[in-house]
Amino acid sequence: MNAPQPKTRGDFLIHMSRQIGFLMLGILIFAEPIAAQQQPETPFEPEPSAKQAAPPLAPRLLQELTALRDAALADDYAYRQVAHLSENIGPRPTGSPQAGAAVEYVADELRKLGLAVRLEEVRVPHWIRGVETAELVEYPGQAPGTTQKIVLTALGGNTPTPAEGLTAEVVVVNSFDQMEALGRQRVAGKIVLFNVAFDRQKAANGFTGDAYGEAVAYRGSGAKAAAELGAVASLVRSVGGADYRLPHTGGSTAAGIPAGAVTSEDADLIAHLAAQGKVRLHVTLTSQTGPDVLSYNVVADLKGSEHPEQVVIVSGHLDSWDLGTGAIDDAAGVAVAMETGQLIKHLHLSPKRTIRVIAWMDEEKGGRGHDAYAKAHEAEIANHVAAIESDLGAAHPLGFNAKVSPNALPVLKRVQEILRTFGANLIKTTNSSPGADIAPLAKAGVPTLGIMQDGRTYFNYHHTAADTLDKIVPQELRENAAAMAVMGYALANLPEPLPR
Amino acid sequence: MNAPQPKTRGDFLIHMSRQIGFLMLGILIFAEPIAAQQQPETPFEPEPSAKQAAPPLAPRLLQELTALRDAALADDYAYRQVAHLSENIGPRPTGSPQAGAAVEYVADELRKLGLAVRLEEVRVPHWIRGVETAELVEYPGQAPGTTQKIVLTALGGNTPTPAEGLTAEVVVVNSFDQMEALGRQRVAGKIVLFNVAFDRQKAANGFTGDAYGEAVAYRGSGAKAAAELGAVASLVRSVGGADYRLPHTGGSTAAGIPAGAVTSEDADLIAHLAAQGKVRLHVTLTSQTGPDVLSYNVVADLKGSEHPEQVVIVSGHLDSWDLGTGAIDDAAGVAVAMETGQLIKHLHLSPKRTIRVIAWMDEEKGGRGHDAYAKAHEAEIANHVAAIESDLGAAHPLGFNAKVSPNALPVLKRVQEILRTFGANLIKTTNSSPGADIAPLAKAGVPTLGIMQDGRTYFNYHHTAADTLDKIVPQELRENAAAMAVMGYALANLPEPLPR
Repeated sequence: MNAPQPKTRGDFLIHMSRQIGFLMLGILIFAEPIAAQQQPETPFEPEPSAKQAAPPLAPRLLQELTALRDAALADDYAYRQVAHLSENIGPRPTGSPQAGAAVEYVADELRKLGLAVRLEEVRVPHWIRGVETAELVEYPGQAPGTTQKIVLTALGGNTPTPAEGLTAEVVVVNSFDQMEALGRQRVAGKIVLFNVAFDRQKAANGFTGDAYGEAVAYRGSGAKAAAELGAVASLVRSVGGADYRLPHTGGSTAAGIPAGAVTSEDADLIAHLAAQGKVRLHVTLTSQTGPDVLSYNVVADLKGSEHPEQVVIVSGHLDSWDLGTGAIDDAAGVAVAMETGQLIKHLHLSPKRTIRVIAWMDEEKGGRGHDAYAKAHEAEIANHVAAIESDLGAAHPLGFNAKVSPNALPVLKRVQEILRTFGANLIKTTNSSPGADIAPLAKAGVPTLGIMQDGRTYFNYHHTAADTLDKIVPQELRENAAAMAVMGYALANLPEPLPR
Repeated sequence: MNAPQPKTRGDFLIHMSRQIGFLMLGILIFAEPIAAQQQPETPFEPEPSAKQAAPPLAPRLLQELTALRDAALADDYAYRQVAHLSENIGPRPTGSPQAGAAVEYVADELRKLGLAVRLEEVRVPHWIRGVETAELVEYPGQAPGTTQKIVLTALGGNTPTPAEGLTAEVVVVNSFDQMEALGRQRVAGKIVLFNVAFDRQKAANGFTGDAYGEAVAYRGSGAKAAAELGAVASLVRSVGGADYRLPHTGGSTAAGIPAGAVTSEDADLIAHLAAQGKVRLHVTLTSQTGPDVLSYNVVADLKGSEHPEQVVIVSGHLDSWDLGTGAIDDAAGVAVAMETGQLIKHLHLSPKRTIRVIAWMDEEKGGRGHDAYAKAHEAEIANHVAAIESDLGAAHPLGFNAKVSPNALPVLKRVQEILRTFGANLIKTTNSSPGADIAPLAKAGVPTLGIMQDGRTYFNYHHTAADTLDKIVPQELRENAAAMAVMGYALANLPEPLPR
């Protein structure tokens, strides 16, 4: 997942609080297995008006959903899809040949299953990472004739440095306020380092959204704020929880100055040295932005037998960042959505409403895919019964984040009873979209759900070179496939569409 | 720490079993806090002949040792030394200007304390890392026009590729035997990947030495064995326990072919793809070996008041690998040795025998420093009462690994009673040297001790870019300083030298 790019810093903060809403759900939820022992389900209690239980599921639907769950928990289809996308195709940044190959691959696989596949056009940005190196060229205690390597990565939308790099003094700040207090006089002509730590304790305790949200605000709008005070480049401390000198990339508002992320170790090093005296850095970030590229959302329908015009979306995003192979962000989401189609076909089930598998393009670089879908399907939005996305990794699913009417909760909880065998029976309502790609649908009033994975280690790997296949535990991926298939099929087969 | 470079593979295996002996001590020891509840100290029980308790320490010595311990546990001297060496000076590979600056810095600091400092000449190798990149250029499922980046690092002593790199098919093997079974016909002209995993479970359970030893044999002699079958390059799976796409460098026997280490993730990727079909890799490793450089062991004496000719060494090694800043390997060891001198001076204590602080040069690239010392001091070896080294990081010390006579154990255990307050009271005897730099002394019969740190995460960071200051917990470093100071001072002040 990633945050689309807001236009101003004010926008950004509002946007982030919206955008990370669904992440912040983790706050109470991840602690639930313990908390629940004392106060079962208190944080998840539905609104008073929705307290009455929903009627039991029809026996046949219950039987079908149970069969889907059990088949998912015994199947490696999703894992094979993730393996192919991440290892055979590799990193899939928007506009790349790999992203194009992934579109073809997923479309072919879904056609093989017998789904009606369309490629829906999206013009996507094409940002290409270049050289990214940096060295401290002056610092207290420096051995004569030496420099020190700084490990960093360019942020998406980076304005390149000259090919030979640029050199300037570094100013280290711990907040926007601190930079503003320094003022233009002390910032102009300098490289600003926003040294704001991702809080590992918060993340480890399940407050993953808080940890991410607090730090990512600087990744998103730090460069723009620094540029406004005349800085020549902007660096952030990487937004992530590991301590393996691993830079985390991500989106950054266009600022007209180079923008990068150093590792937490390098941020510490620079901050320590800058506290002792003058620190000058030479930085080279030569990314390029090419012309927009024609790409596609892959949209594959399993036609409904009774209400083909009514649509339930199951989805993940096909593009990834370029540093890793995008296994957890988000080949996993695409794969479990594909498996919903595969399982329904394999079990010879027939949904009453249309189940639409979508592999979204360009979640990471601005969300052009979901914008294009919303525009192309504007007239049919009212017929979208529900939309589900998985974009928080592939760890054990605890349940769902949901932007739904309180009246929908009893029904959802009834469906989730089937997922209780492996613990995916929590639900948490939210006022923001539970997935970036389904945000336009959420905004239009479509009930939206996101799989709520255990996210405690997600941001250790997110947007790094270490987002690779080995980070996925096959059994946990099967659980995600089961959650997606059961919920998707149920929403397509309930007697009535989910209340809005 | 690192292993010196053996000449043949037979040598290597013998050598490794010797060399890792002191690491393997962790096997029972790290599990001790739990095991001890059932069978107190069984794995550490001294030989029957040594079971009798040693007489109590003299009251004055006991008082001095207690004062040293308490002062160490409240002091940040060692931490400040590690910070300066790792952050202000930075990586200190042998032969580099930074290694030279570190020699000057440590010598100056020890002079400031009032120690008699000598720089003892060592001619060291000068290996300079170059470009290190690789890309898969052919593999099953490859998207047209694309390649995949492989993350790797050159091993020390690497034979460079041509500047433009070399391209060849990859053969993946899981053991020397498997490669030999393939034979020259299937290995010649290929790049061999030794895909032997560092066992994370073993390491996490305290069997750190086993995990390291099993995998490092391939780092050490894989390239030579592959070259003997006509391979054009050799890669190993990185020897380390983390999963953050981090390559681990280290020594490798000169083989006449390029030798590198890929990350565990990249090893998996290559192995998975090679199991599906042909995989070709383009690899560029352009390291250079310059002429030997004049460098130094820093040798600093605190003269003994009664037996100045008798010497107790406290030591760590000053050189580091170049990828990280060498905080845990081994600025920490040098720093706690320095602090022994600092504390004795600060507390106005006067050792009866000479305490010699040594910052060894070139532990990582062949051990020229300890060889030079052994040669220069050959005539005085009999007067070396004991030698201590710290080279297993800076985590909580559990006690000491010791190559000593069984008759020495009761005395050592008596001294370690003082360290019981923070749990550093274990001792484990070994037949191999408990530290690489004190190996020549151990071989000559000098009682040798190595601080036995909790090594469960040491090999996550060892020889990587992530060996940085933040990996050191200040309180744990203080415990190491206390262990070194108490043991060093005790051995210099016991009524009789430790029995040989």
